[in-house]
Formats: sequence, structure tokens, C-alpha cells
Amino acid sequence: MAYASHNLTDTIVALATPSGVGAIGVIRLSGKEAVDIVNEVFHGKDLAKQPTHTLHFGTIRDDSGRILDEVVASLFIEPKSYTGENVVEVSCHGSDYIIQEVIQLFIEKGARLAQPGEFTLRAFLNGRMDLSQAEAVADLIASSSRSSHAIAMQQMRGGFSDEIKRLRQELVDFASLIELELDFAEEDVEFANRDKLRELVAKIQSIIHSLIQSFKLGNVLKHGVNTVIAGRPNAGKSTLLNALLNEERAIVSEIAGTTRDTIEEVLNIKGVQFRIIDTAGIRDAEDTIEAMGVEKTMQKVQQSALLVYVFDVIQTQPEEVQADLAKLIHENVQVIVVANKMDLNPYTLREHYFPKSKVGSGKSEVAAPYSDFRFPTSDFAWVPISAINNMNIEYLKEKLYENVISKQLNLEGTIVANARHYEALRKAHESLERVTGGLEAGVTSDFVAMDIRAALHHLGEITGEISTDDLLGNIFSRFCIGK
Amino acid sequence: MAYASHNLTDTIVALATPSGVGAIGVIRLSGKEAVDIVNEVFHGKDLAKQPTHTLHFGTIRDDSGRILDEVVASLFIEPKSYTGENVVEVSCHGSDYIIQEVIQLFIEKGARLAQPGEFTLRAFLNGRMDLSQAEAVADLIASSSRSSHAIAMQQMRGGFSDEIKRLRQELVDFASLIELELDFAEEDVEFANRDKLRELVAKIQSIIHSLIQSFKLGNVLKHGVNTVIAGRPNAGKSTLLNALLNEERAIVSEIAGTTRDTIEEVLNIKGVQFRIIDTAGIRDAEDTIEAMGVEKTMQKVQQSALLVYVFDVIQTQPEEVQADLAKLIHENVQVIVVANKMDLNPYTLREHYFPKSKVGSGKSEVAAPYSDFRFPTSDFAWVPISAINNMNIEYLKEKLYENVISKQLNLEGTIVANARHYEALRKAHESLERVTGGLEAGVTSDFVAMDIRAALHHLGEITGEISTDDLLGNIFSRFCIGK
Repeated sequence: MAYASHNLTDTIVALATPSGVGAIGVIRLSGKEAVDIVNEVFHGKDLAKQPTHTLHFGTIRDDSGRILDEVVASLFIEPKSYTGENVVEVSCHGSDYIIQEVIQLFIEKGARLAQPGEFTLRAFLNGRMDLSQAEAVADLIASSSRSSHAIAMQQMRGGFSDEIKRLRQELVDFASLIELELDFAEEDVEFANRDKLRELVAKIQSIIHSLIQSFKLGNVLKHGVNTVIAGRPNAGKSTLLNALLNEERAIVSEIAGTTRDTIEEVLNIKGVQFRIIDTAGIRDAEDTIEAMGVEKTMQKVQQSALLVYVFDVIQTQPEEVQADLAKLIHENVQVIVVANKMDLNPYTLREHYFPKSKVGSGKSEVAAPYSDFRFPTSDFAWVPISAINNMNIEYLKEKLYENVISKQLNLEGTIVANARHYEALRKAHESLERVTGGLEAGVTSDFVAMDIRAALHHLGEITGEISTDDLLGNIFSRFCIGK
Repeated sequence: MAYASHNLTDTIVALATPSGVGAIGVIRLSGKEAVDIVNEVFHGKDLAKQPTHTLHFGTIRDDSGRILDEVVASLFIEPKSYTGENVVEVSCHGSDYIIQEVIQLFIEKGARLAQPGEFTLRAFLNGRMDLSQAEAVADLIASSSRSSHAIAMQQMRGGFSDEIKRLRQELVDFASLIELELDFAEEDVEFANRDKLRELVAKIQSIIHSLIQSFKLGNVLKHGVNTVIAGRPNAGKSTLLNALLNEERAIVSEIAGTTRDTIEEVLNIKGVQFRIIDTAGIRDAEDTIEAMGVEKTMQKVQQSALLVYVFDVIQTQPEEVQADLAKLIHENVQVIVVANKMDLNPYTLREHYFPKSKVGSGKSEVAAPYSDFRFPTSDFAWVPISAINNMNIEYLKEKLYENVISKQLNLEGTIVANARHYEALRKAHESLERVTGGLEAGVTSDFVAMDIRAALHHLGEITGEISTDDLLGNIFSRFCIGK
């Protein structure tokens, strides 16, 4: 489990807070020398003599005695720290200049700049967390919705790891028995009961299968639902987008500073993120340039998981709606058809659209005549709204949510949201299928043992019981510096 | 000294670190209830029972038991804190989502969002620092060069305040004596020795005068030197700018994350910032549009403190240099004339420029023939360079620095860099001049007393011994939230 590309005996330093102007910035050091390095430039108490988990006010001075800052130093003495090593966090005034100067000073005194994720890597290597928990730390920092937060938190707290470790332990026990058989191969004994093994493998396969199945949802919860709003020019796409985003934007701007990161059309419904992509209006292409615009919209629809098709109930004829949908729909997309501008007088609407049908009150009846049309697929929702009056917007959000997330969504259950874990689970599942097949075919113990070992290997990769430098490098290089 | 617009008995909360993605984000609470509010949602040790200056690991959970984050809480128990009140700093994972949720939870439990600068305002109102120190906190956070940092640090550590308070105390003693005379007005006694008073006022005036004088430099050190690079097209202005910025940029990018804030042509020479404004090339205006371009350059030169005029030693004739300078120079600008493209063969240069003069080796001799020209002003530096080869760039930087900062610059001395302090000092100086004038004219004690009181008032405004709600509002509203 050595990790050759890093020298783990060094003391590392990095800014742990975002750069930019704020009240404070926190510089973090970890390693054997962390306390001594800070102590050399810290004027106040002698930090080397202070107990763990204490805070100390003092000044940081360079060799010439120049005061770089008044700071508070937090001490975490090994092994009671995030990394398991000595950790000092120095809380400075939030000026880039000061932070740069102080970090430089720590480097002069023997620290080196941390690699991305190196604090967490050390936590992993020192046994403070397993690999899937370490990955969850990065997911937690990146989490931007209730659901992505919930998945990362559950994973960081070890729920997922525990499940994998439990499955693995049960397999390990059987694997040992089978490998014992190999030592006695000539005597043709069976220490491992084949029926029980078959049963166990079936049980584990079924659990792994549900974990694999959960990835589709997990991926959506983690990264958000790619959603396209499409429709003809002036159907009210932008008004709808504003109506959908309106409330959300207000919430976001309540906390000062968050508006700095552009919102970029992200809608949060009941904790699930919808990444909404606006498109140019679709119209019958009269020239090449327009055809290109339509082509571009089509591409975006192809890449999306959810299509919100909006039309103007006055301007657009049902046949046109039908024609548009025929163009837009593809097999991997969920569709919601939104009839906009329903604020208009129902009698006008009736005369315009439904001259021969009976129009009652209530939205379902207004929309009823459309049910006769033959749509390319029939499994999409149908929502009458008035975007400009915020009419039925909440109902539409409900439909958006339902179309992606089953109503029984239970965030307490284990959900796999990490592509690496998904791959490992798939491979473990395949190995177990070979075990089952082998048992059916009555192959010899050594083949069964080999496939069980393979399954164990893949499960072990998830928690890091099995890891390589490449794997670790790959995982931790995606972290931010300072974590 | 009441500050009506804020309720100072509330417990306040804010994000203290910059927003954005980072390893950690720190949420700060201050007020009587700070510990209790955090304790209500913190699961780990009972924070109410922990001593000051200790760190505690735990989870933050909402009422439903959902874990919002694993955090470290720092306790500072009143009065041993930044604000003098109970302060808790909660170090969360650096996700905007998590930080928003945790702040919301604290608000639900009774905290309210802090106003900008409210933590420091409380520190001031609770006597933890005076007003000029509080202002220095904001300056320190905004400091981006060694010199602006040094001034802010000196001010925050109380050097300037001590000086003002000392002056004020001496005046207060005299003022009391004079006011005592007013009580005995009919008896015509003089408790305050007029000669000694005259002497004291003269001494104080002289100190205040040097402080006022220091503002010009202080302002430059704090905000940077507005510098314009001007010259004809292809004189090498951009190459020069790159040569000047080159090294600086490399230093900045050494620390990851700092590059996020655009550099915008800021050059740091020996700790002093030069804000460099590039201009369009000057040429003889042949039409209206070109004339407008020249006009714009002229405006920029008018607003700058330092003009770097660059010319191409091959293409531009000495008379043209002279003509350009005549246009550009105005009385408030320092000028440095830069002869570019000195990398060319000196013999070519000699033949081109100095057919009759003796050209030796060394830059001073190359530049010598120009000394005969009659320039509009004679007090500017003269630097031969080759921007493209980085020749003499360090020497040019030296000249830039010298032209703004006297060689004897001593950052240890008190330098006034705050416009509000400058104004107050000016007013105090005026009042003292009236005192001197009054003493000369032999006015009655009550007039002298009034002018001394005015001087005391203005000096007191600097440290906040005298303050109004308006003044405080004005100062603290410029702070960032969380400080």
C-alpha cells in the first residue's frame, strides 16, 4: 500500500479555505514537524508544551521580527487529528498577501506545499478512514443539494463501507475453507458446504445487484438531472425557466457571498438538482442556418435525461405539438409536455381549440382533449401552466421530480453514486456469476477459489483494502489542495 | 457611544471564510447565546461544560437527526475572544450547500445573520480595540503588498492610536487647567502657563503636521501608485509591461488558487504596488478619431502619479521625444523617460543618433547626448533598456520605486493611510492654529478652551473616543460579512 509518488514523512502545508477575500483564511499543516515548524515563527505560548485540541492566540513573525499576522493556532496532536499526524491549523486574516507570506515562511522552516488531497490521503494511509470514506470527503465538499449531500455523508460515515466489508468477510470465510480443500486435494474432501456457498453467493449477488441498480439514481442525485427545455419561439421557455428558478434564486441569495458562484440554471427540487439547459426555439427550418439551430437543439435533447417540451396553447396547433414531439423524443429521455399560457380566458381557449368538446373547470378537463392524440410514446406527463402567473409551477416541479425519482425514494438506503464503485461492483458480480456457474458445472475447488478471490479483490478495491499507487493517485489528484 | 442600528444583545452568525469550494469553511458565532446555540445541534461533548480555547470534534444534526456535517468547534469564552463575547467557530466541510444549511440551522436556533463588520464593531464597543485599530483590521484583510500590510499591521497593533492618545492626553491636561480658569473668571487667574501651552501646542502641531505629510505616501502605499505607460505606436510599451510583470506573475502563481483573482497589471516593487495603466500609442493626430485617442491618453496621464514614457531609440527622433513629453507632462506627475531597443548594435545606434558624439561603453554614456535637450521639466529619471531582452529592467524598477518613495522610507515610523484620519488630523491642526492665534492675540480663556476642545474632539474621532452612529455605520458597513 506504499504510495511512492509522495514522501509521507514530510510535513505538508496548504491553504484549507477558499482563496479570495474573507474575514479569515486557515492554513493547515500536517506531519511530524507541524507543531515545531509553527512554533518557530509563532510568538505567544510555547506550542510544543500545549495539549491537543487547544487554541492559542499569538503573532507570526519572520526572522527579522516583522509581524506577518496576529493569528489563532489550533493544535491537534497525533493521533487525534484528521490525518492521524500532528496537525496545526493557523487562522490568519483573510488577505491573499498575508496567506502567501505565512505559507512561504512555513516552507522556509521546513514544510512543503501539499499535493491535492494529500491530507486525506494521509488519513487513509494512517487508517483514519477507508478509501470509500476518503472519496466521500471530496463528494461532500462538492455536494450542492440535499440528496448529493445525503449520499456523500452516508458514505463518509462508513455506511457503505460497512456493507461491503460485511459481504466481503462472509466470502473470505468461505474462501478459506475452499482453499483448505486445495491442500487436501488428493483426499477429495469438502470443507465448504456447496449448498451453503451457493446460497451465500446468491444472497451476496442480490445485494450487489441492488447496489448496481442504485447507481443510475445515485449518479443522477450526485451530478444532477440533465434537463432540456425546448419549444417553438415565444412558447414561453424563458418565462418558464424564470418561474422555475425564481424561488430558488431568492433562497440562494439570502446567504451573502453565495451569489458569487454563478447559478447557471440549476434548479433544486426537493433536494434533487436539475441542470437546466435552455435551447433555441424550434421552428420549421426554412434555411440552412435555421436547420443548424434545430440540429443543435436535437443534440442537446439527445444528451439529456429529461425533456420539458413547452408550447403556447393559443399559437400552436395540436398537430404541430405532435410533430415537434415526434422529432424530439428518443428512447433514453423522459418527457414532460407543458401547455403554457393557460391564464387566458377558458372560453376563448375553448373556441380556439376545442370548438366541439365540452370544457369544464379544472386543469384535467382542459387538457383532456389532447388525450386522443397519438403521441410517439405515451408514458409522459402532461402539465397545463401559466408561466407568467406562476400558475401550476409547483405541480410541474412535482412532475419533474417524479419523472426522475421514484416516489419511494429512500435516501436512508445505500445508494452507489461513485463510478469507480459501480465498476468494482459490476466486476465482483461477474466473478460471482462465474462462481455460481462453476458450482453448477461441478468444476474443481481451485477454479471456484479463483473466482471467489477475484470477487474479493474487486470488493476490496472499493474500501481500499486492495489499492495501488495508480488508483490512489487517480483518486486523490481530483481533490482540492488543502483537503 | 450607543449604536442604535444594531441590536448588540443578539447572537450573530456569518461565514468567516471566503465562499467557494475549499477544504473547509468556518462559520463564526458571537454573543451571549453562541455556545448554547451551537450546543443545541452539536453532537459530541457538551460544549457548555468545556473550557475556553478548546477544540471539539462532533456532528451537527438538525431536529430530525439528519447529519449536516462532521465539524470541529472552537470555543472562545467571554471575555477572551475577538469580540469580547462568547465566540464559537465551527469548521465545516467547504461546500456552499453545507455552510448554508448549517447557518440556517443556527438561525433557526436563535442566531441572526451578522451585518458587515459586526464582529469587529462589537470588539470595538466592548473595548477590545479602538476605532483606528478596527479600521486597520479591514485594511489588513485588503492588504496586497508588503507596504500596505506594514501600515495596516502597525495601525492594528495600536502604534498610531498610542501616538494620538498621548498627544490628546497632554492637551486634555491643559484644557482642564484652562477650564478651571473659567470658573474663577472674575479673579483673573492663570492656572495654565501660557508659555508652556504655546510650547505644547507647537510641539503637537509639528507632530500632527508630519502625520498629515505622511498621508501622501501612506495613500500611495495603501492604494498603489497610479502609473501610466505612454509612447508612440511600436515603442515597445507592451513588451515593457510584460518584462515588468514577468517575474511578479511567476511568484503569484506559485501558490495555487491565487491566480483566481485577476492580476490586472499590478506590479509590486519592493513591497509597493504600482497600478499600471496601458495606453494607446500616441501619434500626431491626423483625424478626429485619432485626436480622441490622444485625448484619452492625456486624461489617463492627468490622473496618474507616475508617467513612464517609452520611445524607440531607432525610430523616434530626439525632437519627437521632446514634443511628446511637452504634451504629456503636467505638474503633479513624476516622469521616467525610457529609451527602448538599446539591444541594437551600439555602432549602428551611434551612427543613427549620435554621428558626432563619442559613444563609449556603459549605459550612462549612451544616454549622455540627451542631457543637452531642453525638457519641459528637468527632474525626471532617464533609463535606457531593452524590454525584449530584459535589459536594465531591474534598474528601471529601482527608478520607478525611487521616484515615488524617498530612499529613506522607513515603514517603522507612523504613516497615515486612512483618509478619515487625514481629515481629522487636518481639522485638529486647524483648531490648534486657532489656539496659537488666540494666544498671540491674547483672547480670553473661554475662546482658547473652545479651540482646544475642538482639537481634542477631532483627535478623539480617530481612536473612537468620540464617535457617532453615523460614523460607525459608515466605517463598518465597508467591512466584509464575517469580520
